[in-house]
Amino acid sequence: MNNPTIQAILSRRSVRKYLSTPISDEYIQLIVNSGLYAPSAKNKQNWHFTVISDKETIEKINGLTMIGMEKLGIEKEEGYHVFYHAPLVIVLSSVIEGYSGLNAGCAIENMAIAAKSLGIDSCIIGQTRYMYHQANQVDINRLLKIPEGYEHDCSICFGYIDGDAPEPKPRKQDLVDYIR
Amino acid sequence: MNNPTIQAILSRRSVRKYLSTPISDEYIQLIVNSGLYAPSAKNKQNWHFTVISDKETIEKINGLTMIGMEKLGIEKEEGYHVFYHAPLVIVLSSVIEGYSGLNAGCAIENMAIAAKSLGIDSCIIGQTRYMYHQANQVDINRLLKIPEGYEHDCSICFGYIDGDAPEPKPRKQDLVDYIR
Repeated sequence: MNNPTIQAILSRRSVRKYLSTPISDEYIQLIVNSGLYAPSAKNKQNWHFTVISDKETIEKINGLTMIGMEKLGIEKEEGYHVFYHAPLVIVLSSVIEGYSGLNAGCAIENMAIAAKSLGIDSCIIGQTRYMYHQANQVDINRLLKIPEGYEHDCSICFGYIDGDAPEPKPRKQDLVDYIR
Repeated sequence: MNNPTIQAILSRRSVRKYLSTPISDEYIQLIVNSGLYAPSAKNKQNWHFTVISDKETIEKINGLTMIGMEKLGIEKEEGYHVFYHAPLVIVLSSVIEGYSGLNAGCAIENMAIAAKSLGIDSCIIGQTRYMYHQANQVDINRLLKIPEGYEHDCSICFGYIDGDAPEPKPRKQDLVDYIR
């Protein structure tokens, strides 16, 4: 079946090697807008997006995350970069409520799929939460323009892939039951 | 821009009026598979999908949810049906962990977008959680084939829309900040 949307969904991979090629403003807008059009429980839209293409800020977040990981004793490979040197990062924050994780997932996946349809790969990053284990939360939230009352959920980095897409990890098919 | 994927993302609505027309097995497989190909933290795939096209089971879930809502004093309109009489329901359950809400959101949004690309509408339902406020959890989990160790997250119903698609709710554009 020639369905480009399902093709984008099935061919999305968590990509960990990027070219430095920047993403155009037009494409950034399409990606962000796709996130904004995600569903949210009771239409609360209780999320905040920080869209970062400034290399210096990306490096700052990487550094803060590294220090947090070190403090927590989490090992990482030599030369590890939390965003794999991707040129665009979106930090997602939420007013934490019963369904905020679910809402955030919908928003971030919309952005990943929209990007894929534009030939742009991505990786969802939970590790940026570790930033908060080393410094003043207020300072980090100021750096990332996270409004008061919002908590950092996760990040997603975007870029053009360097090399070939990884093979998909095998899916657990035994986790589907049918009631027909 | 003629991008069918972004078009599917932007035109997805939470639809609350369905025809009784069933969804073909081929389309159900495409939708479920799209859910299974969602990303999950550390590739844990810590989800379980119960795919329900059996009308009797759908009505049972509706009834149990209603009783739960009544016990909690949650008001509902006359004739309310938690799935709006949609012919297909997928119940999503997870092993609850730090990122399970985010994972579930990615999976459920993949299914909503895949369905939209096939001309099928959907609505994500959190209310089925109320089932657990009225009866034996083990009985409900047996009815819904939810494996031990998994907790019910949310549901999503699918069907062909009856009538026109609702207008999108206005999006809050002030919740995006840029660091360029």
